[in-house]
Amino acid sequence: MSNLKAGIVGGSSLLAGLLIEMLDTHPLVDLVYIESEHHSGKPLGQVHQFLKMAYKSKKFEKFSSDFILKHLDVVFVCKPHRDSMKYVKQLYNEKIKIIDLSGDFRLKDIEEYEKWYGAKHIASMLLSKAVYGLSEIYTEKIKRSFLVANPGCYPTGILLSLYPLLKNKAIHFQDIFIVSYSGVSGAGRNPIPGKNLFMDAFNNIIAYKVTDHQHTPEIEAYLSDFAGKEISLNFVPHITSIENGIFNTIIVKPQKTMTENDYYNFYEKSYSKCKFIEIHKDRIPQVKDVVNTNFCRIALKADERTGHLLVFSVIDNRIKGGAGQAVQNMNLMFGFPEETGLI
Amino acid sequence: MSNLKAGIVGGSSLLAGLLIEMLDTHPLVDLVYIESEHHSGKPLGQVHQFLKMAYKSKKFEKFSSDFILKHLDVVFVCKPHRDSMKYVKQLYNEKIKIIDLSGDFRLKDIEEYEKWYGAKHIASMLLSKAVYGLSEIYTEKIKRSFLVANPGCYPTGILLSLYPLLKNKAIHFQDIFIVSYSGVSGAGRNPIPGKNLFMDAFNNIIAYKVTDHQHTPEIEAYLSDFAGKEISLNFVPHITSIENGIFNTIIVKPQKTMTENDYYNFYEKSYSKCKFIEIHKDRIPQVKDVVNTNFCRIALKADERTGHLLVFSVIDNRIKGGAGQAVQNMNLMFGFPEETGLI
Amino acid sequence: MSNLKAGIVGGSSLLAGLLIEMLDTHPLVDLVYIESEHHSGKPLGQVHQFLKMAYKSKKFEKFSSDFILKHLDVVFVCKPHRDSMKYVKQLYNEKIKIIDLSGDFRLKDIEEYEKWYGAKHIASMLLSKAVYGLSEIYTEKIKRSFLVANPGCYPTGILLSLYPLLKNKAIHFQDIFIVSYSGVSGAGRNPIPGKNLFMDAFNNIIAYKVTDHQHTPEIEAYLSDFAGKEISLNFVPHITSIENGIFNTIIVKPQKTMTENDYYNFYEKSYSKCKFIEIHKDRIPQVKDVVNTNFCRIALKADERTGHLLVFSVIDNRIKGGAGQAVQNMNLMFGFPEETGLI
Amino acid sequence: MSNLKAGIVGGSSLLAGLLIEMLDTHPLVDLVYIESEHHSGKPLGQVHQFLKMAYKSKKFEKFSSDFILKHLDVVFVCKPHRDSMKYVKQLYNEKIKIIDLSGDFRLKDIEEYEKWYGAKHIASMLLSKAVYGLSEIYTEKIKRSFLVANPGCYPTGILLSLYPLLKNKAIHFQDIFIVSYSGVSGAGRNPIPGKNLFMDAFNNIIAYKVTDHQHTPEIEAYLSDFAGKEISLNFVPHITSIENGIFNTIIVKPQKTMTENDYYNFYEKSYSKCKFIEIHKDRIPQVKDVVNTNFCRIALKADERTGHLLVFSVIDNRIKGGAGQAVQNMNLMFGFPEETGLI
Repeated sequence: MSNLKAGIVGGSSLLAGLLIEMLDTHPLVDLVYIESEHHSGKPLGQVHQFLKMAYKSKKFEKFSSDFILKHLDVVFVCKPHRDSMKYVKQLYNEKIKIIDLSGDFRLKDIEEYEKWYGAKHIASMLLSKAVYGLSEIYTEKIKRSFLVANPGCYPTGILLSLYPLLKNKAIHFQDIFIVSYSGVSGAGRNPIPGKNLFMDAFNNIIAYKVTDHQHTPEIEAYLSDFAGKEISLNFVPHITSIENGIFNTIIVKPQKTMTENDYYNFYEKSYSKCKFIEIHKDRIPQVKDVVNTNFCRIALKADERTGHLLVFSVIDNRIKGGAGQAVQNMNLMFGFPEETGLI
Repeated sequence: MSNLKAGIVGGSSLLAGLLIEMLDTHPLVDLVYIESEHHSGKPLGQVHQFLKMAYKSKKFEKFSSDFILKHLDVVFVCKPHRDSMKYVKQLYNEKIKIIDLSGDFRLKDIEEYEKWYGAKHIASMLLSKAVYGLSEIYTEKIKRSFLVANPGCYPTGILLSLYPLLKNKAIHFQDIFIVSYSGVSGAGRNPIPGKNLFMDAFNNIIAYKVTDHQHTPEIEAYLSDFAGKEISLNFVPHITSIENGIFNTIIVKPQKTMTENDYYNFYEKSYSKCKFIEIHKDRIPQVKDVVNTNFCRIALKADERTGHLLVFSVIDNRIKGGAGQAVQNMNLMFGFPEETGLI
Repeated sequence: MSNLKAGIVGGSSLLAGLLIEMLDTHPLVDLVYIESEHHSGKPLGQVHQFLKMAYKSKKFEKFSSDFILKHLDVVFVCKPHRDSMKYVKQLYNEKIKIIDLSGDFRLKDIEEYEKWYGAKHIASMLLSKAVYGLSEIYTEKIKRSFLVANPGCYPTGILLSLYPLLKNKAIHFQDIFIVSYSGVSGAGRNPIPGKNLFMDAFNNIIAYKVTDHQHTPEIEAYLSDFAGKEISLNFVPHITSIENGIFNTIIVKPQKTMTENDYYNFYEKSYSKCKFIEIHKDRIPQVKDVVNTNFCRIALKADERTGHLLVFSVIDNRIKGGAGQAVQNMNLMFGFPEETGLI
Repeated sequence: MSNLKAGIVGGSSLLAGLLIEMLDTHPLVDLVYIESEHHSGKPLGQVHQFLKMAYKSKKFEKFSSDFILKHLDVVFVCKPHRDSMKYVKQLYNEKIKIIDLSGDFRLKDIEEYEKWYGAKHIASMLLSKAVYGLSEIYTEKIKRSFLVANPGCYPTGILLSLYPLLKNKAIHFQDIFIVSYSGVSGAGRNPIPGKNLFMDAFNNIIAYKVTDHQHTPEIEAYLSDFAGKEISLNFVPHITSIENGIFNTIIVKPQKTMTENDYYNFYEKSYSKCKFIEIHKDRIPQVKDVVNTNFCRIALKADERTGHLLVFSVIDNRIKGGAGQAVQNMNLMFGFPEETGLI
């Protein structure tokens, strides 16, 4: 069998740079097309300095739906929110598989989308086709899908952290508090003064969008799906002086008194077959444990004094929270072992 | 009037290093005695490399209660927890003012002390004499005290963040969630593998003592004092890849619906005369805003969707959370303007 | 005697922010005027977030040479290179003292200026009036001057490192190699993609302008002045993942064989009266030893194997290499003790 | 053909942790033995927290030369300098291939070894057997060797940077100045107060062993080999606030005037077949370009003003300067394509 032909639309983003590296070493894929609107005609090396020479001299292509639909088996769309849907709309066609890394197809409720993203949705007819690409939870749907909405970085770690508790109705639905810290790569490659300049973020901690981050409705929507009940919660994101990685600290209230071990059992049962989820019993995982990997690592702590349960999780925002999960989803969509080409 | 004669017992710690710098430039103080058990006889510069030459060549002294009681007006005790009480016990005498930077005199309940600090209290007769040195709240008591228990770094920022809400009975007492991040200087100067080595903490996030940090009972005790009611809560500390500073993210539940502005009024009223507390209405303060200063900066955010109230605060753990507040307390104890010698 | 009235022209730069803090606590100065072309009418706090509330609400003023000449005793010009000379030209008048922090008045040779700065000099008549403000070397001239050209950050540390050797004709003039590393604050506050974004500079080392940095002719000109002979050299600057500070590593060839101690004697003699220069015999100073201070610290190492001499120096680029030296120069110009208001 | 059986002696070091990861994903190798004297019997996960669960539960073995000689095809010795030779001495046997990552077999001159490493060499009879494992230069010898002395991190980048110039006799031999900056991982995993604690190295620059680093004679020995003439030079190492990577800044004097392009031709000719060396003509490579890869990237700059030539190079000290080059050498020793299992 010949290798898959893959392409990237929106090839200049940070996540696209990672996808290039990952697809280059993926044994079952040939990366044959890398598009960029702003950089078409320029060598990749001008944008992605770290690439090997062989890649640095390749050129960004113009967008051509004809080329994509004729030559590719799979396309990763790495355009910004609100822009991505224009490309997906042109490409959707049940002969090619699309993995969209933006937020445009994650929320099924158009009103919610338009409220949190501040834009009309121009491809709403595709919302019912799009499968939310949380690889470990929606595995079967992803396998059959032609359009995967790759999850946001924060929602990935948070949803995986709470799935076993909600599935087993072990916690109260209205008292979920999530405090997350992300590395600065989460803010992307374009300068945002006050946020991602060195002198802003280095040696600093910044809380931002503390009640209105667009990942809030995404988290709520899929937690509600797990629980079978509407959930609303506080999600409070911060940026600190690290490159990559997200640390989630979650406080929840148990429905009834259980031992820490009982909770751990829910996690071990839920994730027993998952290659990229590891449950830690003896030590709270740290950001360093997952950076440059596709792993999500989770630990629990029952506080006997207060009766609350603490859940901790870490991922690499760019990998499991971005390009890695996208490759994992591609593997699922084409029937490859899910870990192919991933660390 | 001649300058105060000040001394430091435990002169090799990180906080002692800062105190040396601060007292050196304090216009009303002469620092005449710096003790270190391990380093007595050695020049200060071997431990505190950053000091000016003039100080680097001074020598650490041996401990001498005679000298201290005879020649000093004020002494800062910078010994570790469990060790400090031995020195304070020897020095207590209502002719000299003592500011103890350890945790040994902060908790009034001996059982609590012995449970959280894992040691017998050998100077329990002094617990009733010691005043908790939260400068802005216990001002009048501090002025009259001969023994101040300087607050812990986390409790300082957290207590100042919640005082106006509890004093005004604006929030539920049993639903207070505190997630704090500290710079690595909080872990002190001795190597703790897995925590304060460069390769451990750089580019990393580490949660630690998530249900059993010894600052938990200190926070609970003084919040209970503010509220006039027993409070227990979750305090979840983390360390991240910054040098100095603490960021507190606090989620509380209002007693009744109020506007964000109503809450702000409580803060402005409580702190109108405080030089070192600033309330931010338009922007959540960042760690960088307070590093190297004695300020505590606080902001609020009422989340209309969930009905919860978020409180954010930042301090420099070494200054307002340590040496700076100690100098502020000294100023109060001697009737100087509270900001003398502080930035 | 009433306090000096001081003003800042170009009040939004990083160095201006520091000057505001420094002049605020200077006991002999009132800062009464802070100009910004782009931000006039806006509160200082929008640009300098870290300032105290009292300053944050003050407003940037419009430029008014009338106001300045009428009300101020001293003005600090913090405009960018090539722009600064326009302001100095309007303000020069031997009744007010001007300290210019740009590169516009540092080079006396107009051709050199125009070659390295790529612009016509529009105030060349003032070049002969301007005194190069290397406080420790040109002290007497600075005291009598009405226009001080405050040195560049790299030249400050490098010139102080080599002055005793050249003055004593101890080294070859044509074999001076300087490798310098600076913190990212040296790149200023405006975004320069590829250089001062967090994801560019964090965890990275970047060499830049390795043969054409505009500080090269400044270093050469004043070294030549010390030596009484034309000097040309290699100055190779780098940026690394720290906020503040410069580390200079200099390799020179001795004229004749001398002991390390002989070289040290030159330094101790040259700088015996300098409050802000410290010579280290036992330990090479580190960037941390000088950050947030106005000190330059220097050490030597004679390599017996190769016969070469190594000189190391550190300064804080923003303080001794910028705002601190500017205040030191102001102190000299007005006859204050040189360390007034400085740490 | 069945996979190679590989083992690691000294499995708890930082480099050993990387080797475990690399050999785990190497398609032609099974890692079957990981020894640690201090940790034998403990799970790997207690030392290498970042490993996958499957590896974390494996246990460190005791040292057994019987087991190694009977079951392994290749063994990596990761013991510290001075300790490593004891193990190599026991294992040397021309049926198994040994790659030693310490400094014990790099210097051929016993006196030099004993002077710079401060210890007697107890396996000097093996020095003539050991091949210096600079993969791109000593390729043919490495292929035939049973004992490879894997190069030091600094020498790797520096030797590759100067080989084409010395081979072509393009520069003076006695005027080579090397200033290198390394990430803190170079200082290993054990605490060294004043050097690798977070509060020491973060936001700091430290020069160390400026005339007596043990890599100096290693650099000199192989440069001399390239040149066919004794070379002595200044190598001045520094540590700064980054995790991984080395940046070398080298200043040399040309023998005669040539264009920058002429020099580049030497490099392109020397390295035309090398997968892991990339020559940059348009941009000086940065540490970030090579971190987590086995690449060495090099650029040149001829300074027309001074007549000197600048050479810049970057590597990841742990990969090309350690575990990566070790794997590359293993590939050469067993006739695999040199890039197998490497990025």
